Amino acid sequence: MKNKKEITAAIIIIGNEVLSGRTKDINTSTLAKWLNSLGIEVREVRIVPDDEIAIIHTVNFLRERFNYIFTTGGIGPTHDDITAESISKAFKLEYGFHKEAYSILEKYYNPGEFNDGRQKMAKMPVKAKLILNPTSGAPGFYIENVFCLPGVPSILQSMIGGLNNILVGGDPILNLTISLRTVESKIAKSISEIQNKNSDVEIGSYPFFRAGKLGVSIVVRSSNKDKLKICEDEILQLVKSKSIEIVEDV
Amino acid sequence: MKNKKEITAAIIIIGNEVLSGRTKDINTSTLAKWLNSLGIEVREVRIVPDDEIAIIHTVNFLRERFNYIFTTGGIGPTHDDITAESISKAFKLEYGFHKEAYSILEKYYNPGEFNDGRQKMAKMPVKAKLILNPTSGAPGFYIENVFCLPGVPSILQSMIGGLNNILVGGDPILNLTISLRTVESKIAKSISEIQNKNSDVEIGSYPFFRAGKLGVSIVVRSSNKDKLKICEDEILQLVKSKSIEIVEDV
Repeated sequence: MKNKKEITAAIIIIGNEVLSGRTKDINTSTLAKWLNSLGIEVREVRIVPDDEIAIIHTVNFLRERFNYIFTTGGIGPTHDDITAESISKAFKLEYGFHKEAYSILEKYYNPGEFNDGRQKMAKMPVKAKLILNPTSGAPGFYIENVFCLPGVPSILQSMIGGLNNILVGGDPILNLTISLRTVESKIAKSISEIQNKNSDVEIGSYPFFRAGKLGVSIVVRSSNKDKLKICEDEILQLVKSKSIEIVEDV
Repeated sequence: MKNKKEITAAIIIIGNEVLSGRTKDINTSTLAKWLNSLGIEVREVRIVPDDEIAIIHTVNFLRERFNYIFTTGGIGPTHDDITAESISKAFKLEYGFHKEAYSILEKYYNPGEFNDGRQKMAKMPVKAKLILNPTSGAPGFYIENVFCLPGVPSILQSMIGGLNNILVGGDPILNLTISLRTVESKIAKSISEIQNKNSDVEIGSYPFFRAGKLGVSIVVRSSNKDKLKICEDEILQLVKSKSIEIVEDV
């Protein structure tokens, strides 16, 4: 897709629990939808272990190649939470107590409850800017174009809104879905022809199986509203000419 | 984790629909659990777009570094299914009709229904070996250490069993989970000490929130059964000494 002003992002999911299959990653979907709404396109996701060298290497490789990098996971209080220290090393920045983060956490907990583990959550690159956490206190942080968020989906979701005015997006990416009662092979050739005629639009074809019936969702994406409409009309014409049923509410 | 005989894998999820957030990837979890059971450890996952250069680069980078590579997605009949051709290019192998795959698909469809789109699913590196598909006919394939599977989870799940006798695993990775009614920060220090004493065991700490209550799952992984047991005993002793409740059925 040729976006006039393309702003790109990559996501780094940090966590052995995802690589072992124990936890299914849903943060990618949350982040991608939110970033799309800001006109930022996710181009790559990497899931890496709780391993300092892997994190440093991945962050340093990707941050040179994409406008924004988002990491999830590894900023909690336990021994396997090594994201903040690894990011400090990736940027060759001092790792230690972040004054503002320490102050936030100290106020968040009752007197006597701000123990070692909780204090650890205030350790990060000392020069980092904070991403506030309205759910559970402990802030995320960012350095240059690398934004570090927690792995717990509900906490991550509550924090990203705070970044809406900090991130600079491109043209928002619009999309529409037309779901059809057909199989991919029956429309493959015609959809391919429509794609070839509409190079500024990205057409995806995704089979689905619901309530015992097969179908295909055609997803059309573009930052150009008019071109999206032209493409939609061509697809609807194809659907009509082949007498294919449109399925609502897939 | 120091595995006596470490066999590693990486997964490449191919698909704009995952990068856009429309589809949540669940194949990583399926593949990782299955590979763990065979003694193969997933070390990295990359989600890349339906883009030939991205696929070729990612496959060629990872296949030199891990024992096995698994790709999912992009082997269907539509224009955005470019995995088979991209893999041919990555290996500099002839891309065309695979005789055996063509024959399988020809028999699978009723006379007259084996159209262009369906024939496309028989195109792949002509020298590839097939991965049979008991659900919907169209086979996956593999070349050297790169195994290409479909993106539809139920179809992928039905195909992987056919590879059990082809993949050569290491020592199976055993794991156990102890779920506790506590918060991470209260046990962080002690768990860290147990981890430091048990270097052949990997301990992960994962907070959860169920039925309105917070908890922490401690996951212990190792290929050494005895060392896993020692570590489990130490954790249970810690739990007892701190009078922490164990939660069943998390």
